[in-house]
Amino acid sequence: MINFSDKEKNKFLHELYEFLKIPSISADPSHKNEMVKCSNWLKTNLKNSGCDKVKIIKTKGHPIVYGEKFIDKTFPTILVYGHYDVQPPDPISLWDTPPFKPVLKKTKIHPHGAVFARGACDDKGQMFMHVKAFEWITKNTKLNFNIKFLIEGEEEVGSDNLEIFISKNKDLLKTDIILISDTSMKSNTIPSITTGLRGISYMEITLKGPNRDLHSGTYGGGVANPINIMSKLIASMHDDNMKITIPGFYDKVIGLNIKDKNEILKSAINISDFKKSIGIKEIYGDTDFSLTERVATRPTLDVNGIYGGYTGEGSKTVLPSEAHAKISMRLVPKQDWKEISELFKQYVLNFIPNSVTATIKTHHGAEPYVTPTNSKAYEAAILAYKKSFGANPFQQRGGGSIPIVPIFEKELGVKSILMGFGLDSDSIHSPNEHFGLFNFFKGIETIIYFYEFYTNKIST
Amino acid sequence: MINFSDKEKNKFLHELYEFLKIPSISADPSHKNEMVKCSNWLKTNLKNSGCDKVKIIKTKGHPIVYGEKFIDKTFPTILVYGHYDVQPPDPISLWDTPPFKPVLKKTKIHPHGAVFARGACDDKGQMFMHVKAFEWITKNTKLNFNIKFLIEGEEEVGSDNLEIFISKNKDLLKTDIILISDTSMKSNTIPSITTGLRGISYMEITLKGPNRDLHSGTYGGGVANPINIMSKLIASMHDDNMKITIPGFYDKVIGLNIKDKNEILKSAINISDFKKSIGIKEIYGDTDFSLTERVATRPTLDVNGIYGGYTGEGSKTVLPSEAHAKISMRLVPKQDWKEISELFKQYVLNFIPNSVTATIKTHHGAEPYVTPTNSKAYEAAILAYKKSFGANPFQQRGGGSIPIVPIFEKELGVKSILMGFGLDSDSIHSPNEHFGLFNFFKGIETIIYFYEFYTNKIST
Repeated sequence: MINFSDKEKNKFLHELYEFLKIPSISADPSHKNEMVKCSNWLKTNLKNSGCDKVKIIKTKGHPIVYGEKFIDKTFPTILVYGHYDVQPPDPISLWDTPPFKPVLKKTKIHPHGAVFARGACDDKGQMFMHVKAFEWITKNTKLNFNIKFLIEGEEEVGSDNLEIFISKNKDLLKTDIILISDTSMKSNTIPSITTGLRGISYMEITLKGPNRDLHSGTYGGGVANPINIMSKLIASMHDDNMKITIPGFYDKVIGLNIKDKNEILKSAINISDFKKSIGIKEIYGDTDFSLTERVATRPTLDVNGIYGGYTGEGSKTVLPSEAHAKISMRLVPKQDWKEISELFKQYVLNFIPNSVTATIKTHHGAEPYVTPTNSKAYEAAILAYKKSFGANPFQQRGGGSIPIVPIFEKELGVKSILMGFGLDSDSIHSPNEHFGLFNFFKGIETIIYFYEFYTNKIST
Repeated sequence: MINFSDKEKNKFLHELYEFLKIPSISADPSHKNEMVKCSNWLKTNLKNSGCDKVKIIKTKGHPIVYGEKFIDKTFPTILVYGHYDVQPPDPISLWDTPPFKPVLKKTKIHPHGAVFARGACDDKGQMFMHVKAFEWITKNTKLNFNIKFLIEGEEEVGSDNLEIFISKNKDLLKTDIILISDTSMKSNTIPSITTGLRGISYMEITLKGPNRDLHSGTYGGGVANPINIMSKLIASMHDDNMKITIPGFYDKVIGLNIKDKNEILKSAINISDFKKSIGIKEIYGDTDFSLTERVATRPTLDVNGIYGGYTGEGSKTVLPSEAHAKISMRLVPKQDWKEISELFKQYVLNFIPNSVTATIKTHHGAEPYVTPTNSKAYEAAILAYKKSFGANPFQQRGGGSIPIVPIFEKELGVKSILMGFGLDSDSIHSPNEHFGLFNFFKGIETIIYFYEFYTNKIST
């Protein structure tokens, strides 16, 4: 077990606070300068932490920060990916303390305290663990691997410019394995490694009926109401067994093999806790699968937003001209997001009657991803968790999507190891985001062990 | 034929413009003062037009304006009902000119010009015809009837306080007949009288799922999405033949008798013109009935507004906590709106799964209404149209609802004559509402003739 000195702990935390204070909101154009400031801060920190080649890469959007420490070409190379941009903090009124003034507060789940700030967990805090693990190794032992840090500023807005950069800089980014901490683990006593991510296809449908909002008395009964049609359309997309009805949707889905299924079900979600944590009376979904499978290994179709007609206070008797729905589908191996988006479009166009017209827009997409569990790197990760937590980590699938992970695989031909140390209850993307102190330091420790196992410095 | 002098015309129009400039939006609490201002303006205008007893009646909501000119108890008494409140102008961006800055513009249908403003037709413009007809009679002839004006400020929000006022002031409101211009006619060459109105039941459903917006990746597939459930619910309310599926919904519906049906079909809607006027490719609805029947003599169920989840620009991957829908049903004789509202509630509660909870609110309701076509007043109206337009008016059913009409019948035992002069294409409740100059002055003329025929001053 690694015992960080108080001096080290204070230094790491002090730096994390400085990092979190910079409001690096990538989605907000008014924060462009803060993004530059944040990238420069990170560049300096990477240099001070031991990188000997650091640079800011300008893009059409926000800068990418690159750092490298090359020791010997016979050593394995590890690329660490992360992002320094954060989600907008809205609604700010729901934060108990300001989102960009990090404070330490104790919670039931984090009795040793957690840092509350936007980005504390997603992903500044988790990414920074890697920088500090590297610094610790540099200062306390001898590096027997080469390391490359690739930290982007646009993860929360789609990673478009990083994708371009990767495809043009394959040599620079050449690596044996990619290490990412941007997922969660089950609990502080039961660690888990994410071995799969769902893909996504995010669509928006606009249905147009009459050329203006009509009086529902004068016209009602004779004119197709776009909201009623939208409701029929959405309703038709699931059958009574909660299977998605879009023809071809499941064609390429490969289910879990028995081994993976058993592995995942070892850390099955406790339904009672699950219901309590989000205040629902009953779970829902495809009854052919357990809850644990449903939320991570099965594809979904959820309406993320809908609007049309009169949405103000009180009542207005309009037969609306338009209805809008934002609909996303989470995808699983081997679904192809572009193909699914196309099947979705065709389904919508076939479904709607002549009395309305549909416009269908693709917002963005990402492929699903699976990490093989028989690689040396995966094995090293398992051993590292075991050593730091004193417990075998569970294998879990993440229901969310990290678009860049399948792109790394496609462009660099390299798999990613997803070592997440945040908890689902850490409120990422929500008000009062936080990251446990225990998790931060246990994460650094686990990462250090990963390198030791991966480079055969230690073995079981 | 009555020829209004230019001076009279200018005066009437100038006053109408002043009236339309006041944004008397009853549904918007922030417009409370504008409602008071508008009621005072109207009170003054009624006084200046010849009423000798005018007053503002305060209510729990917006004020009622009352005006009276009593000549002789042996004379017949006519009560004119109308409303000075208007629909919200949203979406304002679709107005070509500001909704509360009336302007005169020529259109294909109104070559002599139409006044464009919210309320121009519904109902400030149409109601004001009665005030000006009364003024003209007072100044140019001798009144041989008593008149009472009852003008409310809550027609667009359900007329609740007027209903209370009527039930408590039956003596004050004692009348032989009620005259209302708050409906439409077929065209400027083919006048028509409305002999029936649909009732309405206006409901709002809120479905709540999880206690906060969730990450659709982490939770999608295992949690009921309130928008998906709302869509299923709404879709289930119509069958494939566009019949409403709520049990008991049609039980009390009495169809048209052959005579009324034939009368109504004399002025059947031209489907091609109808489609063109509102920019749709196909009509829609219950194929057991003609379009003319569907929009006026059959009950409907339309979503007037829907919202939930993320409705801003771009995409956000939330599994929303709530979904909201405003749904109204148009009713026909002998459906009872309170009974229908209850059937609706039961249907919703039976339909939704345990995984969400529903709150169902009744916004307002109104009973359907039919005017007998064998009364002296109805006959006088027919003759008045014939004299002013030079054409026999058609008998039509109105698809909309005027909640107070069946209440007048119930409380005062008096029927209403519905002399509407607006056109369906005048965009009431929509952006760019307008009212033709021809219609405004032809309306005043027809109303003057109505009094003359009704009081036997002239006869055919």
